[in-house]
Amino acid sequence: MAATPYKQLEQEWQRLHAFSGALSLLRWDAAVMMPRGSADVRGEQLAAIETEQHALLTSPRVARLLERAQAGAGELDSWQHANLREMLRQRDHAIATPVPLISRLARATSVAEVSWAAASEKQDFNIFAPHLEEVLQLVRDKAALLGQALNLAPYDALMDGYTPGIRGAEIDTVFRALSRRLPTLIREAIERQAAAPALPVAGKFTTARQRALITEVMKAFGFPFDRGRLDESDHPFTEGGAGDVRVTTKLDQGDPFKGLLAALHETGHALYDLGVPREWRTQPVGKERGIALEESQSLLIEMIICRSRPFLQYLRPLLEKHFAISGPEWEPGNLYRLLTQVRRGAIRVDADELTYPMHVVLRYGIEKDLMDGKLAVRDLPEAWNHRMQDRLEVKPANAAEGCLQDVHWAHGAFGYFPSYGIGAVIAAQLYESLRAATPDLDARIEHGDFTAVRNWLVEHVHAEGARLPPQELVRHATGKPLTAAASLRYLEARYLEEAR
Amino acid sequence: MAATPYKQLEQEWQRLHAFSGALSLLRWDAAVMMPRGSADVRGEQLAAIETEQHALLTSPRVARLLERAQAGAGELDSWQHANLREMLRQRDHAIATPVPLISRLARATSVAEVSWAAASEKQDFNIFAPHLEEVLQLVRDKAALLGQALNLAPYDALMDGYTPGIRGAEIDTVFRALSRRLPTLIREAIERQAAAPALPVAGKFTTARQRALITEVMKAFGFPFDRGRLDESDHPFTEGGAGDVRVTTKLDQGDPFKGLLAALHETGHALYDLGVPREWRTQPVGKERGIALEESQSLLIEMIICRSRPFLQYLRPLLEKHFAISGPEWEPGNLYRLLTQVRRGAIRVDADELTYPMHVVLRYGIEKDLMDGKLAVRDLPEAWNHRMQDRLEVKPANAAEGCLQDVHWAHGAFGYFPSYGIGAVIAAQLYESLRAATPDLDARIEHGDFTAVRNWLVEHVHAEGARLPPQELVRHATGKPLTAAASLRYLEARYLEEAR
Repeated sequence: MAATPYKQLEQEWQRLHAFSGALSLLRWDAAVMMPRGSADVRGEQLAAIETEQHALLTSPRVARLLERAQAGAGELDSWQHANLREMLRQRDHAIATPVPLISRLARATSVAEVSWAAASEKQDFNIFAPHLEEVLQLVRDKAALLGQALNLAPYDALMDGYTPGIRGAEIDTVFRALSRRLPTLIREAIERQAAAPALPVAGKFTTARQRALITEVMKAFGFPFDRGRLDESDHPFTEGGAGDVRVTTKLDQGDPFKGLLAALHETGHALYDLGVPREWRTQPVGKERGIALEESQSLLIEMIICRSRPFLQYLRPLLEKHFAISGPEWEPGNLYRLLTQVRRGAIRVDADELTYPMHVVLRYGIEKDLMDGKLAVRDLPEAWNHRMQDRLEVKPANAAEGCLQDVHWAHGAFGYFPSYGIGAVIAAQLYESLRAATPDLDARIEHGDFTAVRNWLVEHVHAEGARLPPQELVRHATGKPLTAAASLRYLEARYLEEAR
Repeated sequence: MAATPYKQLEQEWQRLHAFSGALSLLRWDAAVMMPRGSADVRGEQLAAIETEQHALLTSPRVARLLERAQAGAGELDSWQHANLREMLRQRDHAIATPVPLISRLARATSVAEVSWAAASEKQDFNIFAPHLEEVLQLVRDKAALLGQALNLAPYDALMDGYTPGIRGAEIDTVFRALSRRLPTLIREAIERQAAAPALPVAGKFTTARQRALITEVMKAFGFPFDRGRLDESDHPFTEGGAGDVRVTTKLDQGDPFKGLLAALHETGHALYDLGVPREWRTQPVGKERGIALEESQSLLIEMIICRSRPFLQYLRPLLEKHFAISGPEWEPGNLYRLLTQVRRGAIRVDADELTYPMHVVLRYGIEKDLMDGKLAVRDLPEAWNHRMQDRLEVKPANAAEGCLQDVHWAHGAFGYFPSYGIGAVIAAQLYESLRAATPDLDARIEHGDFTAVRNWLVEHVHAEGARLPPQELVRHATGKPLTAAASLRYLEARYLEEAR
C-alpha cells in the first residue's frame, strides 16, 4: 500500500530536518572551529542547502501533498493534526515571500550589517541610516505579503516567524503591565541594594578550571556529554539538537560567573532541545515552540534558578574546589547580592533581570513605530534617547551605546525583540507553578539535585513540542493564562523581600 | 540572453560543489569533534545531502542539458570541453548503478563492516566470509553494469571510479616490472642496512610540542593556517579544499616522527587541493585527478622529500628547538637510516616504501581473482598467506594479520588498492623530473625552502586539474609515459647507493 499523502509529507520533513541539522553543524563550526579566512566558502555551502530547503518547502509536490493531506485530515490523530498545521505554517511562510524579495533582503541586510558595524565604530548613525531605510522598506513589503498570506496584521506576521501564534495585542497587555510597575520597582531595588552593597570578587580564574566547573554543573543538570559538547565562541549559543547538542560560552579569566551563567543559559536551551518528544524529533511538531518559549527555558535556568540562594549554596563548595577561593566575598549571601545586582545601564545585553524588560519594551515600541511610519529613520536616535531617559533614566553616551547597539534591525529582524521580553515573563510563570508542585524545590537545588526542575519542565513544556500555540502551552503548563502577574510577583519577591 | 546549456550545467555543478564541501565538513567533524554517541544523527545528515547530490546528478534536467551541451560542444574551449567530459563521466557513474542496488550495497557493506571487525577481533575469517561473499556478488553486479555503461571491462570500470582513466592493462605492466625487481631489491637493502643499523631515539615528546613542530614545518611548505586547520584523529586524513582545508594527524608521545610524517603526507594532499586552478574550483575539471594522483602528491612529500637527507638536515635544528634533544642518534645520518629502514612485515599500513608496493600487488592480484571467480572467498586466507610468503617471505600469524587487515573489501571498495601502488610510481617519476628541473633542489630543501618543490608541482600537476587522464598528465609533467622505470631508479638510489 502506498504511503498516505500525510505520511509522504512526514518523509519530506525528515529530509528538511536532516538539512537543518547539517546547517546547524555548519554554523557551529563557523563560530567555533572554522579558520578566519574561510567565511566565503562556508557561505556557499550554507546558501546551497538553504536554497534546497526552500525549493523543497515550496515545491508543487509538497503543495499537492499538503492539499491532499488536508482533505484527509479527518483520519489524523491530534499530534498528526498539529504536525500538518505546522507544515502548512512553514510552507506559507516560505511561499509568501517571493524569491526576488528574499534575494533583495539578503543583499540589503548584508550591506546594512557592514554599514552598521562602521556606524557603531564611528558612533555615527548617519552612516547606517540610508541602509536601515532600505532594509525597513523591504521588511515592510515582506510583512505586508506575509500578513496577507497568513491573514495577520503585518507586524504580527513578522512575529509569527519567531514565536508562532504570538500577537501584538497580547504583547501590548503584558508589556503595559511591566511598564506600569517596573520603573518604581527598579528604583526601590536600587535603593535597597545600596544599603547592603555586595563585596566584589577578584582573582585569576583560568579557562581550564572554569571549563571543569561548568562541565560539573552542566552534568548536574543532565547535559549529555556523550551526545553533546561545550566549547568557546565570541557569542554564546546552542546549535544541534537531541543526539548532538552543542553549547558554547565565552570565558573571562577575571570573572568566574560570566562564562558559567552564559553556559547555563545555553544549557536551558539544550535541555529544551533534549526534552521534545523523541518520536516526533524529525517533524515540525516535535520542535521547540518558538523563540519566546526557548528564551523562557534559558532564563528560567540562568536567571531564576542559577542566581537563587539555594543554587549559590550548592555552588559555593564547587567554587572552592575548582578555584581554591575563600573569604567573606565568597559566602552565598554575598554571591546572591553580587549576581542579582540591579544597575541602570544603556546596553541591553549587559542588563540585569529587572531592567532588561524595559530595554525590550523600548525596542518593541520603536520598531512598531518604524514599521507603521510613525517614526522616521532619521529621527530614530532622538526617539531612542528620549524613551531611554523616560523608561530607564539613562542617557546613552553616543549612538553606539544608543540605537546602534543591536544588530537585529540591520539583519531585518523586526518582530524578534518582543520574544525576549515574553520569554522572561513565561519563565517566571512556569517557575511559580514549578515551585507550587515541588515543595522541597529549594532543598533539592541546594543539594545540586535538578531532576525535579528538569522533569517538571519536560513533562509540562518540552514534551508538548510545538503541538500548542505558546499561550495555550503556558495555560496547559501553569493552569493560568499568560500574563505579567507571576513575573511581577517573582521580581518583587527577589528584589524587595527581606534577605533570609 | 539565457545561459547556454553548458553554462547552466556549470551552475548545477556549483551546487554539487557546495554540497560536497558541506559533506566534507560533516565528515571532518565526525572524526575530529563529534561526541561519540552522535553517529546516527550524522548518518542521517550525510545521507540526506548525498541523496540530494545523486538526485541532482541523475535528474532529467541534467540529462537534457548534457545532451544539448554535447550538441553544442563545438563552441567550447579545451577546458570547458574537458569539464563537460568530466560531468558526463560523473553522471554516467551515478546513473549506471540503479538505486536499489546502491541500497543493497549500502546495507550489505554496513553489515559486512561489523562482521569484519568481529572477525578481526576473534581472528576468525569464517565470521566474515559469508558477508564478503554477499558484498562481492553485489560488487560484481555493479561492475558489470558500470562496465556496460562506460564501455569498459568490469574491473576497469570499478577502478575508473577511483582513478578515472586508469586501466588494468597499464596496472599489469607497471606491477609486473615492480614484481620483477623489488623482491631482490628488498633483500639487498635489508642486508645493507644490517651492516649499519640505525640507533633508536627515545624520550617523551608531548603533543603540544609535536604540534608546534608540525605547524612550523607545514608553514614552511606553505600550508595556509588562516584558511586551514591541523587537528588530531584516529586515522590521519585531509578534508575540505582551497578556502578551508583541514588536515589531521595522529600523535604518539613516544615517537616524534609518526605524527609529523603523517601530517606531511596529508600536507601533500592539501597542497594539491590548494594548487588546482582557482577559476575552476567549483567544477569537476578543477578537482584533483583521482586517487592515484592524489596519493602521488602525499607520497612525494612524505616519503621522498621528507625522509631525504637534505630534509633531515633541515629538520635536525627544529627537533632540537622543540624537543631539546641531543646525541648521536639525532644526527641527520642516523635519522635517515631510521626513517628509511626496510622491514618485512605482514601489515600494509606499517610497511616501508620498499615493501609497500608488494602489499599492493598482492591485493590487486587477489581482488581481480575474486572478481573473476578464479578465487573462491573460502580459499582467500590460504591464497593470501601463500602469496604473502611468495612475495614478501612473510607468514601472517593469523587471519587478522592476514587477509582481514584491511577494511576496503568489507566496504565494497574493489579497484581501489592499485591506486596506492600507481601513486607511489607516479611520485617517483615526478620527483625525477622535479630534480632535473631544479639543480639546487637539495640545497633549497636543506634550508627549508620548499617553494621550488611546490611551484613545480603546481605548474606541472596541480594547475592541470582534471583536464587530462592520469597517464597524459604524467606525460605532460615528465615528458615520458607512465612506467615503473623512474620508481625503480629512485628506490635503487635510495636503498642501494653509498651513503654520502
